[in-house]
Amino acid sequence: MSNVNHKFELAARPVGMPKRTDWNYKEEPVRDPGEGEFLVKILYISLDPAMRGWMNEGKSYIAPVGIGEVMRAGALGRVTASKNPKFAVGDHVYGAFGVQEFAISNGAGITKVNAGAIPLPVFLGTLGMPGMTAYFGLLDIGQPKPGQTVVVSGAAGAVGTVVGQIAKIKGCTVVGIAGGAEKCNYIVKDLGFDAAIDYKSEDVRKALQKHCPKGIDVYFDNVGGDILDAALTQLARGARIVICGAISQYCNTTPIKGPSNYLSLLVNRASMKGMVVFDYTDRYAEAGREMAGWMAAGKLKSREHIVEGFETFPDTLLKLFKGENIGKLVLKVA
Amino acid sequence: MSNVNHKFELAARPVGMPKRTDWNYKEEPVRDPGEGEFLVKILYISLDPAMRGWMNEGKSYIAPVGIGEVMRAGALGRVTASKNPKFAVGDHVYGAFGVQEFAISNGAGITKVNAGAIPLPVFLGTLGMPGMTAYFGLLDIGQPKPGQTVVVSGAAGAVGTVVGQIAKIKGCTVVGIAGGAEKCNYIVKDLGFDAAIDYKSEDVRKALQKHCPKGIDVYFDNVGGDILDAALTQLARGARIVICGAISQYCNTTPIKGPSNYLSLLVNRASMKGMVVFDYTDRYAEAGREMAGWMAAGKLKSREHIVEGFETFPDTLLKLFKGENIGKLVLKVA
Repeated sequence: MSNVNHKFELAARPVGMPKRTDWNYKEEPVRDPGEGEFLVKILYISLDPAMRGWMNEGKSYIAPVGIGEVMRAGALGRVTASKNPKFAVGDHVYGAFGVQEFAISNGAGITKVNAGAIPLPVFLGTLGMPGMTAYFGLLDIGQPKPGQTVVVSGAAGAVGTVVGQIAKIKGCTVVGIAGGAEKCNYIVKDLGFDAAIDYKSEDVRKALQKHCPKGIDVYFDNVGGDILDAALTQLARGARIVICGAISQYCNTTPIKGPSNYLSLLVNRASMKGMVVFDYTDRYAEAGREMAGWMAAGKLKSREHIVEGFETFPDTLLKLFKGENIGKLVLKVA
Repeated sequence: MSNVNHKFELAARPVGMPKRTDWNYKEEPVRDPGEGEFLVKILYISLDPAMRGWMNEGKSYIAPVGIGEVMRAGALGRVTASKNPKFAVGDHVYGAFGVQEFAISNGAGITKVNAGAIPLPVFLGTLGMPGMTAYFGLLDIGQPKPGQTVVVSGAAGAVGTVVGQIAKIKGCTVVGIAGGAEKCNYIVKDLGFDAAIDYKSEDVRKALQKHCPKGIDVYFDNVGGDILDAALTQLARGARIVICGAISQYCNTTPIKGPSNYLSLLVNRASMKGMVVFDYTDRYAEAGREMAGWMAAGKLKSREHIVEGFETFPDTLLKLFKGENIGKLVLKVA
């Protein structure tokens, strides 16, 4: 019984928003796993802003995806054949399987997922990389104290929703910045943020003055650009800015906009620090246990934005850069 | 015996470089000190890049100088009359006496200077605010480790010269960025920096690649602008950027240039933190003792660029922004 694999390879380095012609859609037979290997049928593919960065040439925290290589992506699948004693048929596994329907693995870098009552896509979001990013970025770099004011941009996204909810759990006042009324309603009414700022209809700088009268103690930045600059104008003394991403800048065709107001770091004795979640791999399990506990206690809600159909990948990915997803964007393969 | 005081008041908020018309030069009689007060004859006035910031309206780490007020400046003088038992005629004192020839004080915020064999102007430079800024900015915020690479901009200035020398004392490889051959020669040949980059004649980014093959561990920034952006391209993993000033931007008539390459903080898990020396007042004495010890041991050299003539103040101040001083710029009054 032979399977057919479909995959998206990177065909060209995109300029600005990735186009259809930046991808090659290919079909190939699936080979049988060799000794020590196993075959994974991909069920869900994680779509993340960071993927845009992996498509660019140049030094970064990880090597770029090569032209002609299958696009890198985290994914969740089920083992369907195995010659590896550690992975049995039927196991659910997570790994960087890429944007394809089947993957062969020798187990390196693969983790088993024991979902229990938790839906599988949650392991790509709140209990996956985005959740880990939120957890360690906020708690390790941001170090919020009870009573302090935490502001997060991209607040309705996979990382932002978790950042805000953890900050609430830690006793902070939480303000989220997001685009549009639906997202703003969601983070306040469903997730319990204290306030939301709709950057599409509000003056972010003035809204931050209103909602953060004592200044911002922790600013968790997922977007960069003008919103980062606005946050810099409202820092409290000793503020910590966590640089997690800059989605507003990833599809630029002009140079990245640096934060003009960065001298606010001096005036306010504040810091700005970058983080990469991969540095925390040896603490993922600990964080996962704590977050699963919060979920079970109803303190941490997870939302996934699931789009069905493997072949929609090129368009579905763009939802991230157009701000069309609420919660974790997941491509459902099968 | 009545003295006459001359002073420079801020007449207007400058746009770009301060002009003569931004100042009022005034003459007034000197009054006698009242009960608890003493009279100081100013000998040396400290000219600092930060003064440009104090002339602007708007929130900062210190209130702006008001229009019609004497310009704020640190200065060193001698007590010539006293009705304060703690300050005797003949004492040398340091304080924010302003740009004037005489000052009356009640002693608040004033420190006595026991110069001994050390020339008085050193207490405005290496053993004054610039030295304290270098000491705490480098050691507390930068936290250099032996063998690491430290880069400092404004390297031939009052702060930069001290940053580089302390970094050498701490066993680091030190690269200074300065403008022109004279400054570059000075920091390498006289002060013992490992290398100098002349930003006026070299491509700073390429020169940093050459001189910092393992990347920059600590970047102490006094200048901002393009040089900060170049440094960001060459960070080592976990680098610390100390934001001390941005002299290239202080006389801008356009918005400040933010660092386009700030996402290097993310890629390299690096941090950028602002510092204000006033936060360390309770540790000045400790730092002063250590630095005086290094000076006595010949490990730390101090250089002052002394300009004579009180009335030259408006033009002499501009030397800072034109990059015409080497070491600490001091206005000699009498």
